[in-house]
Amino acid sequence: MALIVQKYGGTSVADVNRIKNVAKHIAKTYDKGNDVVVVLSAMAGVTDNLLKQANEITNIPEKRELDVLLSTGEQTTVALMAIMLNSMNYTAKSLLGFQAEIITNRDSCNARIKNINADRINEFIKKRYIVIIAGFQGIDIKKDITTLGRGGSDTSAVAIAAAINADMCEIYTDVNGIYTADPNICEKARKLDEISYDEMLEMSSLGAKVLQIRSVEFAKKYQVPVHVRSSFNMEEGTLVVNENQNMEKLSVSGITCNKNEARITLKKVPDAPGFAAKVFTPLADAGILVDMIIQNTRSSGKTDLTFTVARSDFEKAVSISNTVAKELNASEVLTAKHIAKVSVTGVGMKSHSGVASKMFSTLAKENINIRLISTSEIRISCVIEEKYAELALRVLHTAFGLDKDKDKDAD
Amino acid sequence: MALIVQKYGGTSVADVNRIKNVAKHIAKTYDKGNDVVVVLSAMAGVTDNLLKQANEITNIPEKRELDVLLSTGEQTTVALMAIMLNSMNYTAKSLLGFQAEIITNRDSCNARIKNINADRINEFIKKRYIVIIAGFQGIDIKKDITTLGRGGSDTSAVAIAAAINADMCEIYTDVNGIYTADPNICEKARKLDEISYDEMLEMSSLGAKVLQIRSVEFAKKYQVPVHVRSSFNMEEGTLVVNENQNMEKLSVSGITCNKNEARITLKKVPDAPGFAAKVFTPLADAGILVDMIIQNTRSSGKTDLTFTVARSDFEKAVSISNTVAKELNASEVLTAKHIAKVSVTGVGMKSHSGVASKMFSTLAKENINIRLISTSEIRISCVIEEKYAELALRVLHTAFGLDKDKDKDAD
Repeated sequence: MALIVQKYGGTSVADVNRIKNVAKHIAKTYDKGNDVVVVLSAMAGVTDNLLKQANEITNIPEKRELDVLLSTGEQTTVALMAIMLNSMNYTAKSLLGFQAEIITNRDSCNARIKNINADRINEFIKKRYIVIIAGFQGIDIKKDITTLGRGGSDTSAVAIAAAINADMCEIYTDVNGIYTADPNICEKARKLDEISYDEMLEMSSLGAKVLQIRSVEFAKKYQVPVHVRSSFNMEEGTLVVNENQNMEKLSVSGITCNKNEARITLKKVPDAPGFAAKVFTPLADAGILVDMIIQNTRSSGKTDLTFTVARSDFEKAVSISNTVAKELNASEVLTAKHIAKVSVTGVGMKSHSGVASKMFSTLAKENINIRLISTSEIRISCVIEEKYAELALRVLHTAFGLDKDKDKDAD
Repeated sequence: MALIVQKYGGTSVADVNRIKNVAKHIAKTYDKGNDVVVVLSAMAGVTDNLLKQANEITNIPEKRELDVLLSTGEQTTVALMAIMLNSMNYTAKSLLGFQAEIITNRDSCNARIKNINADRINEFIKKRYIVIIAGFQGIDIKKDITTLGRGGSDTSAVAIAAAINADMCEIYTDVNGIYTADPNICEKARKLDEISYDEMLEMSSLGAKVLQIRSVEFAKKYQVPVHVRSSFNMEEGTLVVNENQNMEKLSVSGITCNKNEARITLKKVPDAPGFAAKVFTPLADAGILVDMIIQNTRSSGKTDLTFTVARSDFEKAVSISNTVAKELNASEVLTAKHIAKVSVTGVGMKSHSGVASKMFSTLAKENINIRLISTSEIRISCVIEEKYAELALRVLHTAFGLDKDKDKDAD
């Protein structure tokens, strides 16, 4: 008997049949004596269709109004799910963002949850109702509807779980859990039983698209245990929890690969205070997020400055860089659009030495040149040529002992 | 310079092009210096589609949840209209039922507006925003979404106009105004420039589907001038206002015809206190609304009891009547499914004698038998065989001098 939050993504509620399957699983969980709060996304494709409708009118739809439009997607699924459960003789009640009092800031289309007044949710739970809450949406202090950005329903679910002090937040999706690598690229990838919040944070930010990164931040902050699992086979997936003694003793728990970046180098810029600001301020003003930044000291007071940006911002960033380069008398601007960032992540790294050297030597063995390196406490990332991305992922996966059917402590 | 509420129905906002046309008309009204509050229905067909989705799950969808589902229709149109107007450089803000604080009772799917807290609407008007409000929906005291029943957006518009003390409530629809008769049946029907609330109430309840009857009740109660007009040609339509000196001096201002009823007669039931209750209580318990009731006294303490019900309730009503007939020892139950109710309506009736006799003699001249008669202060209705409905409508239209290009005071 527990209080369980279950979140189902768009593919899990894509049509009436799938809604029925999900309803049966919710009912089963409820019949075991658990209290169940459900958080739903819009049916697969619906949010895109709504965006398309808005774009038929204008390329830049007013954001406050776009949120009113987009929030109908989740409203539809919670109503249909509640109708389904009631038709199965369960008492289910839907709640929209304003009814569940999911209070956000006023940043339309990309709002952040500030707090949740869970009185009504708790009142319903007490009455043993199944509570069906619209994900992705909230309400700001002016009672305007807001949405949380793509993947926001994950964050809704974890934030609600935190607000009602749930025992578990189950995220049902179209994959079986968190894998040591993308199984589409690395067939030897295997599902992890557990992963720490910190590892999940690194992997989310590196492009493992299973969970919205903000949901993991919430889970870590409020210590919400998250269970990522499939709504198609309902099997046990991956627990995202605090780093603990029982976790597999791996130095590295996952390899990720991100092809959405591009590299820019300003050669021979002055190595003097303030020059970095001159490069990055205009980029920030243009709304361009810079990911990795590397500076190589050269002789004679000059330095090479290399950084990466999202590939979609590449052309804009190059144009700004050219302007800046002239001002700073840089010798030239080098660019590389087709790069990939391969990363190894694991809390075990903190206690295992040699992860970096093993990574570099493994790539070297395959003649893969490393262009940029960046590290965090539990992650090492290397920028390589895009064409080597899949190969790099697979050889690193093997080198760090992550392949299926292998001794787990090979490292 | 006035404060104008404009309501557009589903056909007027059926697609992006029509939304654009409507937006231009709103902008034109605003540019003249008027304050404009817009109330919108769902796009034509959308509400039916949502109902269909719910019915794929169950024939009896839970009403609270059905309202959550149906209200997405109007939410979509207000968002798209606001996006459209903003893209045309007008500041437009959408408000849903809960944001406009349209407070209703808790009668899901058929709620009634109790009051409107217009603070936010007025705040927006003051800032010269164009306010776009979702019709058809409200919110109850528990913050549950409610809907007002089919045609409810008319009522939303009039209630909002009353709450903000608007100078005019314009109802844009797919017809040019209120006609002396249905132009599809009577080609000589002509548009009325003005009609009184009372006449409109009678005509709405008799099946003239231009305005939801509750909206007319609201308009009369709060003295809101209503202008029914077409969103396709934007020409002057019909004013629905208080009965006044300037109105055309007609004894009859409209002829209506309703084919949605059926007739049931219980023959030779006891003519004693309480027996009528024995007939009508089980019908009411079954949710069947009885329209006309006529009792003919016969000799020997027996009477014939005739009544009409909606044709959709006919089979259920007949079955109940058969049971009751046995209990009351009625001699038989006569039924007629194919009847029509033809009515003449007009405030002028009060001061013109001979309307009834003219109606009866006109029908008699065509050999149309009258089966039932009922009257109100400003209306006379006759039940006739369905096959004569159109003929009756046309001859009465002529007899009461309503035909186009005729002397208006022919009567």
